Amino acid sequence: MASTVLTPAVLLEHWLGHRRLTRRTIEAFPEEALFEHHIPGMRPFAAMVAELNTFLVPTLQGAISGTWAWPDGTRKDATSKEALLAAFDAMTIELERLLPAVPEQRYLELDEPVPGRREPVIASLLYFLDNEVHHRAQGFTYLRHLGIEPPPFFAR
Amino acid sequence: MASTVLTPAVLLEHWLGHRRLTRRTIEAFPEEALFEHHIPGMRPFAAMVAELNTFLVPTLQGAISGTWAWPDGTRKDATSKEALLAAFDAMTIELERLLPAVPEQRYLELDEPVPGRREPVIASLLYFLDNEVHHRAQGFTYLRHLGIEPPPFFAR
Repeated sequence: MASTVLTPAVLLEHWLGHRRLTRRTIEAFPEEALFEHHIPGMRPFAAMVAELNTFLVPTLQGAISGTWAWPDGTRKDATSKEALLAAFDAMTIELERLLPAVPEQRYLELDEPVPGRREPVIASLLYFLDNEVHHRAQGFTYLRHLGIEPPPFFAR
Repeated sequence: MASTVLTPAVLLEHWLGHRRLTRRTIEAFPEEALFEHHIPGMRPFAAMVAELNTFLVPTLQGAISGTWAWPDGTRKDATSKEALLAAFDAMTIELERLLPAVPEQRYLELDEPVPGRREPVIASLLYFLDNEVHHRAQGFTYLRHLGIEPPPFFAR
């Protein structure tokens, strides 16, 4: 057997660092801009965060069980910054609860989270994390556009 | 010993998928906008790619050897889109060469790639990859700002 190059605990700590940075990014937005400001063809940052809030648990449940059940659309339950942060925090708690519940032997199993994308489960988990980094970076750009300094990328 | 939840080969394949997407993002820019277009307080996308081109090899060499030697600034050797793509492709070849040279036992060793940031080597590798995803997403935003459709995020 090959060496262990990653553990679920190291992945969780890395991921939680990203969650803290994403949370600071949400906090940096003025409330109205969070829900309204956008570049043509793109969504406001709140809608991107709602996407993350919608798909985290289905991703983790798919990783755990092999059953990937994707909601049809994004939850739109948060209409204030406070509610969006609360929903985000609730999903961070779900991450802390569900990531350790992914059986370790699942990580390298080939699965098909969406039709046609056959990959090891770890790649599906990283895909979700990458999507968070991707949308947060778009949030950084919105903040700059608004003349607001984003939180430092390196601070986790 | 715990299960293997990631292998260097799976990490490389995941990373190369990101490299392909970043390359398509560079390609989507008109040449002048690549070097000139930016949001106030941010750099043009070419400068972000130059940063990636500058720091990939020092990251991998640090992961291999434990000696982290960071250049003072970003390389500014590419002044055309063709040259920037060639430099990017050269770095992808370095990734394919150097990632498999990271000794597997290094991945979970605690190291200090920059003063005060003590973390397992896998976290430093993921940090570089996250930085690529972060800057590419800013490139996506620039493209939208220019009225250009970015490549699909899911296509790797």
